[in-house]
Amino acid sequence: MHFTSEQRLDDGVIEREFTLGGIPGILWTPESASAPAPLILLSPPPLGLRKVYPRLLARARHAAADGFASATIELPGSGDRPVWPALDQARADLRRVLQAGEPVGDEIIDALVLPLVEKTVPEWRTALDALLTLPGIGGPVGYSGGVISIGTRLAAVEPRISAAVLYAGSYIPRVIFEEARQVTIPLHVLLQWDDEGNDRQASLDLFDAFGSEEKTLHANMGGHTGVPRFAGDEAGRFLARHLLPNVIR
Amino acid sequence: MHFTSEQRLDDGVIEREFTLGGIPGILWTPESASAPAPLILLSPPPLGLRKVYPRLLARARHAAADGFASATIELPGSGDRPVWPALDQARADLRRVLQAGEPVGDEIIDALVLPLVEKTVPEWRTALDALLTLPGIGGPVGYSGGVISIGTRLAAVEPRISAAVLYAGSYIPRVIFEEARQVTIPLHVLLQWDDEGNDRQASLDLFDAFGSEEKTLHANMGGHTGVPRFAGDEAGRFLARHLLPNVIR
Repeated sequence: MHFTSEQRLDDGVIEREFTLGGIPGILWTPESASAPAPLILLSPPPLGLRKVYPRLLARARHAAADGFASATIELPGSGDRPVWPALDQARADLRRVLQAGEPVGDEIIDALVLPLVEKTVPEWRTALDALLTLPGIGGPVGYSGGVISIGTRLAAVEPRISAAVLYAGSYIPRVIFEEARQVTIPLHVLLQWDDEGNDRQASLDLFDAFGSEEKTLHANMGGHTGVPRFAGDEAGRFLARHLLPNVIR
Repeated sequence: MHFTSEQRLDDGVIEREFTLGGIPGILWTPESASAPAPLILLSPPPLGLRKVYPRLLARARHAAADGFASATIELPGSGDRPVWPALDQARADLRRVLQAGEPVGDEIIDALVLPLVEKTVPEWRTALDALLTLPGIGGPVGYSGGVISIGTRLAAVEPRISAAVLYAGSYIPRVIFEEARQVTIPLHVLLQWDDEGNDRQASLDLFDAFGSEEKTLHANMGGHTGVPRFAGDEAGRFLARHLLPNVIR
């Protein structure tokens, strides 16, 4: 992990950009931490970190105010990372099907999402290895992210993640429904009810499939990127409740 | 409205029992209110006020801590109110169908729920008239209750109710889905996801039908009466956000 920049934001949050095996990332830490901070992995949507930076920063500031460090890395094929022709092809295939008004079949969804899951999950686990060796960063670890199949796989295979906020709203391969049954950590799933690009029933089915004893679904209005502020606050309280010691919220 | 008892609870909440046109009810008010308190109507499930008193009291204490007065009245055919043979017959018909493993048809649901809605909603409006004339009780008015068809009808027809928490988990007549489209106030719907006695899909369909621009569905695990404490807290924050002036939560 190689830090490339460091700045102190106006609210005292320290923002450091880094690269890890060629993957760009950002780490935010609260300025005044008396003990190693718990960590939230902020997984971005596949739009490039520069584009989604304002949304991630808002969540990182919120997390820092609660005492969390948080970190993100660029997804493969997004932002400044190398072009990934197979992913671009899968996206083009999806667009063509949608424009033709045809149903989006399993083959299209698998080609679009599974390679992304298979490449991304090991990258996040490597990032977690590196982040947890930094001074000032401790556990427990939470996850909050936007491609729900990535979050599901990661929650199923990575025992260091103790609680996860999952944003529904992307296509879900069939195999992910099976993996969801292996997930046992507390989950907080956000669903934008009237998100036109989202298969609502698939999101409800995935929520049903999760094996977790504590799982909550929060459905709201407002379109794909219109998660209400109060819903973001509730997700923050969920992570605080599960990851901060001695906090009752 | 005739008060029959008054006591100060250990946390300073004043609890007064009353009768209104022969209907028993309870009013809880915060001890130290500097201005007329906003009001929450706490509609009980049809099990009798004595039986559900602990649950209602917990919600009333929570509400009082936020500065709310809250009030409940006994549902027709429940608790100490006169036996209602038609309701008992409808419940017996439902039990017979369930025991036979047959599907619960629209006729059974209509006979079980619609008379209850038609009798209860005017009673709550009359109670609201009386409650709002009391010194120390002002607006705005919220609703929080358990037979979702009663809450839906009341939210559709009673303009003095500004926000409502609705507990899914009872059978829903078809006509109520139509009335739901007329509801425009902010809604917070609680659904116990694995409630065996509940038609989950009907609850999701009703949530979809509500005409409100702001509506939120919170689904949780834990069975019919197992609403998690954090979910109750979130419902309380919803009411505070909409009904208390100058509160940001």
